[in-house]
Amino acid sequence: MKAVVTVTLKPDVLDPQGQAIQHAARFLGYDAVRDVRQGKRFELTLEPAADREEAAALLSELAEKLLANPVIEDFRVESIES
Amino acid sequence: MKAVVTVTLKPDVLDPQGQAIQHAARFLGYDAVRDVRQGKRFELTLEPAADREEAAALLSELAEKLLANPVIEDFRVESIES
Repeated sequence: MKAVVTVTLKPDVLDPQGQAIQHAARFLGYDAVRDVRQGKRFELTLEPAADREEAAALLSELAEKLLANPVIEDFRVESIES
Repeated sequence: MKAVVTVTLKPDVLDPQGQAIQHAARFLGYDAVRDVRQGKRFELTLEPAADREEAAALLSELAEKLLANPVIEDFRVESIES
Protein backbone atom coordinates (compact mmCIF):
# COMPACT_ATOMS: atom_id res chain seq x y z
CA MET A 1 0.00 0.00 0.00
CA LYS A 2 1.48 3.35 -1.06
CA ALA A 3 0.51 6.74 0.27
CA VAL A 4 1.60 10.34 -0.10
CA VAL A 5 1.41 12.89 2.71
CA THR A 6 2.30 16.54 2.16
CA VAL A 7 3.32 18.93 4.92
CA THR A 8 3.22 22.69 4.32
CA LEU A 9 3.87 25.70 6.51
CA LYS A 10 0.70 27.39 7.75
CA PRO A 11 -0.12 30.42 5.60
CA ASP A 12 0.85 32.96 8.28
CA VAL A 13 4.25 31.37 9.02
CA LEU A 14 7.26 33.00 7.36
CA ASP A 15 9.23 30.82 4.92
CA PRO A 16 12.81 32.14 4.61
CA GLN A 17 13.85 29.13 2.50
CA GLY A 18 11.06 29.83 0.00
CA GLN A 19 12.02 33.51 -0.04
CA ALA A 20 15.66 32.63 -0.75
CA ILE A 21 14.52 30.51 -3.71
CA GLN A 22 12.35 33.35 -4.99
CA HIS A 23 15.28 35.78 -4.78
CA ALA A 24 17.55 33.28 -6.55
CA ALA A 25 14.95 32.82 -9.29
CA ARG A 26 14.78 36.60 -9.83
CA PHE A 27 18.57 36.76 -9.85
CA LEU A 28 18.63 34.11 -12.60
CA GLY A 29 16.23 36.23 -14.64
CA TYR A 30 12.95 34.45 -13.81
CA ASP A 31 11.08 37.64 -12.99
CA ALA A 32 7.73 35.88 -13.36
CA VAL A 33 8.27 34.14 -10.01
CA ARG A 34 6.32 36.16 -7.44
CA ASP A 35 6.40 33.84 -4.47
CA VAL A 36 7.74 30.42 -3.44
CA ARG A 37 6.70 28.34 -0.43
CA GLN A 38 8.61 25.16 0.35
CA GLY A 39 6.95 22.15 1.89
CA LYS A 40 7.66 18.46 2.42
CA ARG A 41 6.35 15.39 0.66
CA PHE A 42 6.45 11.93 2.19
CA GLU A 43 5.98 8.76 0.16
CA LEU A 44 5.07 5.93 2.52
CA THR A 45 4.87 2.21 1.91
CA LEU A 46 2.51 0.52 4.37
CA GLU A 47 1.51 -3.06 5.14
CA PRO A 48 -1.84 -3.74 3.45
CA ALA A 49 -4.60 -2.28 5.66
CA ALA A 50 -8.12 -3.63 6.10
CA ASP A 51 -9.52 -0.69 4.17
CA ARG A 52 -8.85 2.83 2.96
CA GLU A 53 -10.39 4.45 6.05
CA GLU A 54 -8.06 2.51 8.35
CA ALA A 55 -5.05 3.54 6.29
CA ALA A 56 -6.20 7.18 6.20
CA ALA A 57 -6.63 7.20 10.00
CA LEU A 58 -3.16 5.72 10.51
CA LEU A 59 -1.61 8.26 8.15
CA SER A 60 -3.31 11.22 9.85
CA GLU A 61 -2.10 10.04 13.25
CA LEU A 62 1.43 9.52 11.92
CA ALA A 63 1.47 12.94 10.24
CA GLU A 64 0.31 14.66 13.41
CA LYS A 65 2.79 12.87 15.69
CA LEU A 66 5.83 12.47 13.47
CA LEU A 67 5.79 14.11 10.04
CA ALA A 68 4.45 17.57 10.83
CA ASN A 69 4.81 20.12 13.59
CA PRO A 70 1.12 21.01 14.11
CA VAL A 71 2.04 24.37 15.67
CA ILE A 72 3.42 25.78 12.41
CA GLU A 73 2.55 23.19 9.77
CA ASP A 74 -0.50 21.74 8.06
CA PHE A 75 -0.59 18.25 6.59
CA ARG A 76 -2.72 16.49 4.01
CA VAL A 77 -3.03 12.83 3.06
CA GLU A 78 -2.83 13.22 -0.73
CA SER A 79 -3.32 9.72 -2.03
CA ILE A 80 -3.64 6.12 -0.90
CA GLU A 81 -3.08 3.34 -3.44
CA SER A 82 -3.29 -0.34 -2.69
CA MET B 1 -1.01 31.78 -11.47
CA LYS B 2 -0.27 29.03 -8.95
CA ALA B 3 1.80 25.93 -9.54
CA VAL B 4 3.12 22.98 -7.58
CA VAL B 5 6.44 21.29 -8.32
CA THR B 6 7.55 18.18 -6.44
CA VAL B 7 11.15 17.03 -6.15
CA THR B 8 11.95 13.47 -5.08
CA LEU B 9 15.15 11.50 -4.71
CA LYS B 10 15.82 9.13 -7.61
CA PRO B 11 14.74 5.57 -6.68
CA ASP B 12 18.32 4.27 -6.38
CA VAL B 13 19.51 7.10 -4.10
CA LEU B 14 19.61 6.32 -0.38
CA ASP B 15 17.34 8.42 1.86
CA PRO B 16 18.69 8.43 5.44
CA GLN B 17 16.10 11.02 6.52
CA GLY B 18 13.27 8.80 5.30
CA GLN B 19 14.86 5.81 7.04
CA ALA B 20 15.10 7.74 10.31
CA ILE B 21 11.38 8.55 10.05
CA GLN B 22 10.56 4.90 9.35
CA HIS B 23 12.57 3.80 12.41
CA ALA B 24 10.86 6.46 14.56
CA ALA B 25 7.45 5.28 13.31
CA ARG B 26 8.28 1.69 14.29
CA PHE B 27 9.54 2.89 17.65
CA LEU B 28 6.21 4.66 18.23
CA GLY B 29 4.40 1.40 17.48
CA TYR B 30 3.42 2.03 13.86
CA ASP B 31 4.69 -1.32 12.62
CA ALA B 32 2.64 -1.03 9.42
CA VAL B 33 5.13 1.54 8.08
CA ARG B 34 7.48 -0.37 5.77
CA ASP B 35 9.28 2.46 4.04
CA VAL B 36 9.39 6.26 3.97
CA ARG B 37 10.95 8.48 1.30
CA GLN B 38 11.11 12.22 1.89
CA GLY B 39 10.83 14.72 -0.93
CA LYS B 40 10.20 18.42 -1.40
CA ARG B 41 7.14 20.30 -2.54
CA PHE B 42 7.26 23.83 -3.91
CA GLU B 43 4.19 26.05 -4.23
CA LEU B 44 4.96 28.83 -6.69
CA THR B 45 3.02 31.98 -7.49
CA LEU B 46 3.81 33.24 -10.99
CA GLU B 47 2.89 36.29 -13.05
CA PRO B 48 0.08 35.30 -15.43
CA ALA B 49 1.64 33.52 -18.42
CA ALA B 50 0.40 33.59 -22.00
CA ASP B 51 -0.69 29.97 -21.73
CA ARG B 52 -0.26 26.74 -19.80
CA GLU B 53 2.52 25.46 -22.06
CA GLU B 54 4.58 28.60 -21.46
CA ALA B 55 4.12 28.25 -17.70
CA ALA B 56 4.99 24.54 -17.80
CA ALA B 57 8.18 25.27 -19.77
CA LEU B 58 9.22 27.98 -17.30
CA LEU B 59 8.57 25.67 -14.35
CA SER B 60 10.56 22.79 -15.84
CA GLU B 61 13.50 25.11 -16.49
CA LEU B 62 13.31 26.52 -12.97
CA ALA B 63 13.07 23.05 -11.43
CA GLU B 64 16.08 21.83 -13.36
CA LYS B 65 18.24 24.87 -12.57
CA LEU B 66 17.14 25.80 -9.08
CA LEU B 67 14.71 23.49 -7.29
CA ALA B 68 16.21 20.06 -7.97
CA ASN B 69 19.65 18.54 -8.21
CA PRO B 70 19.24 16.55 -11.44
CA VAL B 71 22.10 14.21 -10.50
CA ILE B 72 20.21 12.67 -7.58
CA GLU B 73 16.68 14.07 -7.84
CA ASP B 74 13.67 13.87 -10.14
CA PHE B 75 11.11 16.65 -10.43
CA ARG B 76 7.54 16.85 -11.64
CA VAL B 77 5.28 19.83 -12.36
CA GLU B 78 2.18 18.64 -10.50
CA SER B 79 -0.38 21.32 -11.21
CA ILE B 80 -0.79 24.72 -12.83
CA GLU B 81 -3.81 26.83 -11.94
CA SER B 82 -4.55 30.26 -13.31
